[in-house]
Amino acid sequence: MTDTETLAAELKRRIDIKTKPPGSLGRIEALAAQIGLVQGSTAPRMARCQLTIFAADHGVATEGVSLFPQEVTRQMVLNFLSGGAAANVFARSVGADLRVVDAGVAGASFGLAGLIDRRIGAGTASFLTGPAMTAEQCDRALSEGRALGADGDWDAVAFGEMGIANTASAAALGHKLTGIGLDVLTGRGTGLDDTGLSHKRAVLERAAARTGDLAPAAALAEYGGFEIAMMAGAMIGAAAARRIVIVDGFIATAAALAACRIAPETRAAMVFAHKSEEQGHRALLEALGAEPLLSLGLRLGEGTGALLAWPLLRAAAAMLTEMASFEDAGVTGPA
Amino acid sequence: MTDTETLAAELKRRIDIKTKPPGSLGRIEALAAQIGLVQGSTAPRMARCQLTIFAADHGVATEGVSLFPQEVTRQMVLNFLSGGAAANVFARSVGADLRVVDAGVAGASFGLAGLIDRRIGAGTASFLTGPAMTAEQCDRALSEGRALGADGDWDAVAFGEMGIANTASAAALGHKLTGIGLDVLTGRGTGLDDTGLSHKRAVLERAAARTGDLAPAAALAEYGGFEIAMMAGAMIGAAAARRIVIVDGFIATAAALAACRIAPETRAAMVFAHKSEEQGHRALLEALGAEPLLSLGLRLGEGTGALLAWPLLRAAAAMLTEMASFEDAGVTGPA
Repeated sequence: MTDTETLAAELKRRIDIKTKPPGSLGRIEALAAQIGLVQGSTAPRMARCQLTIFAADHGVATEGVSLFPQEVTRQMVLNFLSGGAAANVFARSVGADLRVVDAGVAGASFGLAGLIDRRIGAGTASFLTGPAMTAEQCDRALSEGRALGADGDWDAVAFGEMGIANTASAAALGHKLTGIGLDVLTGRGTGLDDTGLSHKRAVLERAAARTGDLAPAAALAEYGGFEIAMMAGAMIGAAAARRIVIVDGFIATAAALAACRIAPETRAAMVFAHKSEEQGHRALLEALGAEPLLSLGLRLGEGTGALLAWPLLRAAAAMLTEMASFEDAGVTGPA
Repeated sequence: MTDTETLAAELKRRIDIKTKPPGSLGRIEALAAQIGLVQGSTAPRMARCQLTIFAADHGVATEGVSLFPQEVTRQMVLNFLSGGAAANVFARSVGADLRVVDAGVAGASFGLAGLIDRRIGAGTASFLTGPAMTAEQCDRALSEGRALGADGDWDAVAFGEMGIANTASAAALGHKLTGIGLDVLTGRGTGLDDTGLSHKRAVLERAAARTGDLAPAAALAEYGGFEIAMMAGAMIGAAAARRIVIVDGFIATAAALAACRIAPETRAAMVFAHKSEEQGHRALLEALGAEPLLSLGLRLGEGTGALLAWPLLRAAAAMLTEMASFEDAGVTGPA
């Protein structure tokens, strides 16, 4: 047996002798085993979680693919910094740390303490007419992300995003990476009506026709956003640092797909938090063989779904490290 | 408009002006509105949660309807008291208080400090041949439960159970309360094989044939357990004290059904935590018009599913009280 197989067998044994019918904690048991494998330990620590929100703007926003104007990205960064957004509220509620990264919001640099400046540019170019970013910008975003994913000593890391029009970018990227049709992957984002949805789909079809088959990093450069590329890099860096990577909704899943295509070993560290209401999310999840833990009708982004999954990770690790065995507790096993 | 309608409208207004696309927090928004209505406030408090585990034995255990021997109920009470069971671990992990009530475990009284003694008897009689308990015992169990549900100052209360053979009791009770067939309601409990399942179903069919239509309290006396009756009472008491009642899995849902038939106003306070793997749970949930928050493959009982839902309640209340509005944050709304 490989070391991993030996550890997996030992984790299963330890979980099975706990005072409960075997398998009766369902996905919590699978989660505990995954956490043990990622940390390489039968006594994993799941004490600290951090959410990093990557914000950036998208040139394609000028094509009318979102209900909200582009200025909302910048306004929401300020809302995150003052603690009033859903992600802030949920992070405080579940006991997770939060930091905000400017990956490339339109306009000038914020110049604000408390905001991590990793600007690749003042928003991407519109991918309708050309690449969203250069190959060099994409490499920089991935590399800044890798460093951010690996720093500190968090046990689990979640990644959120803010960027008006980024469901369009995620749909185009997902399409290029998997071949799944844009009819499946194009959704209503923050709330487009039927006309808006048709228009968004038409824009994406035209944009996709611009290029043929693309390698993962090239697809990211052509159709991604700075926040999506940086998030993909952060997932790779965090997994390499043996952290659990909590993957949020549709956009984070597109980033996860890019991360796994670039560095396949990243997949083993990923926990999928939430099946979002955004059409196409299910298709991307299937491409990753992923079944999210939660399904609460969320479609906000910001890492909100990932934060709500954090208590489940903590409980799973606690089950492994704190729960008594039949022998410890003097409880009779099944007949 | 009634006061409740006015409050519901005001809660909806406050949730809709938060910095997020309307409806984009899905079930968290519905949960926040429910919490506000239960507490009668637009600024509800969701700071303290308590799990009460009711333990009792079932005469029907002698009919071979469970994989575990009856002595396990008593052993597990000791495991709860020493902090090693799944419910203890999850309660610590999510920050909930926990207490254990002896509602009628077989054998002598434990005589232990730290265990709340509300013993109705030393286990029920087998409902295969006669009523599980007398009408007077059932009334006492309901009334002790009511008092336990209403004491203290918790914002949300969860109820767990431990009692070998109590899925058999819950199936028979559910059948009598709803008319749903025992083929649907009889499940594998802690892990019966096909032969065990057939035998359990046959026992339940014979037991059910013993009586005709029954009023809710009579059904509880005929087929319930002391822990199930006390849990039903506790739900009624907690809802009357304007607490959120977090309903766990199959057995707790049978108790919830009894509680709602006895005191229909109890339903409005209930949040259903988890869709368990126990066959028949879905049917009882439908009878209550309930859609649980989580589906994690749990089938342990003890209130474990309810504990994992507690962070969602806390997050929902925090969304209502702490999240900025578009106006507060200076964020532009949708076009």
